[in-house]
Amino acid sequence: MKQDYFSKRVSVRNYSDKIIPESQLTSIIERAMRAPTCGNMQLYSVILTKDLQKKQRLAELHFNQPAATGCDTILTICADFNRFSKWCKASDAEPCYSNFHSFIMAMTDAVIFTQQIVTIAEQEGIGTCYLGTVNYNASEISDLLDLPRLVVPVASLSLGFPASLEAQPERLPVNAIIHKEKYVDYDEKRVTELFKVKDENPENIHFIKENGKKTLAQVFTDIRYPKNTNESVSESFHRLLDNKGFI
Amino acid sequence: MKQDYFSKRVSVRNYSDKIIPESQLTSIIERAMRAPTCGNMQLYSVILTKDLQKKQRLAELHFNQPAATGCDTILTICADFNRFSKWCKASDAEPCYSNFHSFIMAMTDAVIFTQQIVTIAEQEGIGTCYLGTVNYNASEISDLLDLPRLVVPVASLSLGFPASLEAQPERLPVNAIIHKEKYVDYDEKRVTELFKVKDENPENIHFIKENGKKTLAQVFTDIRYPKNTNESVSESFHRLLDNKGFI
Repeated sequence: MKQDYFSKRVSVRNYSDKIIPESQLTSIIERAMRAPTCGNMQLYSVILTKDLQKKQRLAELHFNQPAATGCDTILTICADFNRFSKWCKASDAEPCYSNFHSFIMAMTDAVIFTQQIVTIAEQEGIGTCYLGTVNYNASEISDLLDLPRLVVPVASLSLGFPASLEAQPERLPVNAIIHKEKYVDYDEKRVTELFKVKDENPENIHFIKENGKKTLAQVFTDIRYPKNTNESVSESFHRLLDNKGFI
Repeated sequence: MKQDYFSKRVSVRNYSDKIIPESQLTSIIERAMRAPTCGNMQLYSVILTKDLQKKQRLAELHFNQPAATGCDTILTICADFNRFSKWCKASDAEPCYSNFHSFIMAMTDAVIFTQQIVTIAEQEGIGTCYLGTVNYNASEISDLLDLPRLVVPVASLSLGFPASLEAQPERLPVNAIIHKEKYVDYDEKRVTELFKVKDENPENIHFIKENGKKTLAQVFTDIRYPKNTNESVSESFHRLLDNKGFI
């Protein structure tokens, strides 16, 4: 594989005290706005959380993971059809974006925009980490940030200059991901072969023992992403989409 | 604004006949797999469509937009909890990802991965364009590509070497997107001010006349993204999520 920034990057969860200048952050966001966007509608907003107290409160809603508590800034990126709809109303047009498809469009826009922020920030030496917990307390995050109707948080990023770098985690082989012309489903033998890189990783083996499990997959299904959590988050997130007028 | 690749990029809809070498495409995808992914689960797959007949059929499902008909390769990027679930089953673990939250996680993963492909490809001189129509015929695309349960297309990209470059479209000013600490809602005066860059763009004014409308917003609400289409796509996409076991 070609060695470049893309092949070498890692997420950063441990930040120094060095402050990200506001002008740099604005410049990153402004360039990220050049990322592709559906119909040039720019269906996203970003809330900057820098204030220490607000950051602590927001970090709590992300279960106080170190990436959230120790970063310079948390960005909450939202699927936003509010601004566009307000413009429609001000322009003698009837907005019609109170539906699920519009949410999916805006979420896609917002995630593309988020990943562009990640790439630009990282190429300028800033560390980033997605806070994958954004959906878990999305309603509480929405209240904390005063999000109106048709605005839903879909990605959270912590940003800061790196204090230390983690080793790159393993990835599946590329042929696990690529399908030529048609999806070729995985049988037991093939999936076992493809996931060997995970199952045989010494760190993962340690992780299995630490959690008292027999296999790495059990750590995922029983501890990290278990059924009851997935189902309750499904319910609360669906309710939020409903409350925000997207369903 | 700093001038760099990110500030200058544009999507490409007009491609030359030059073929993208398969090794280059694989290398791009392999590096894109280093993008952040939820819990290192890599909840995505990518289907490559290069075969002329299949590309024509797939382009039809994207309403024969020129970016689809004239490109070298179409990538269909899917939210995929099938592979991970198969691994769970092969590892004495009970997968529990047949729910809406799991779809949202996998969709986020897939869109991050897609945008990483865009950035890497573009930095190597390949033009890309999102086919924003992926949700419109998602069920037909799913059938064409043999997608199994827990696999749903969420992004489509056309790729090819550029034959010509379009001018950069306008974007909102950066302060339209950024909210500091809390979301500050837009009143009519402010939204009108922020959208001036769109309303006063000569190309957009031409577009309004061409469509027999009074305002640019009406072109969006009445023609490009109208209520009946948004509602029928909402219904069909929701049905697909249901059929694929995500709801």
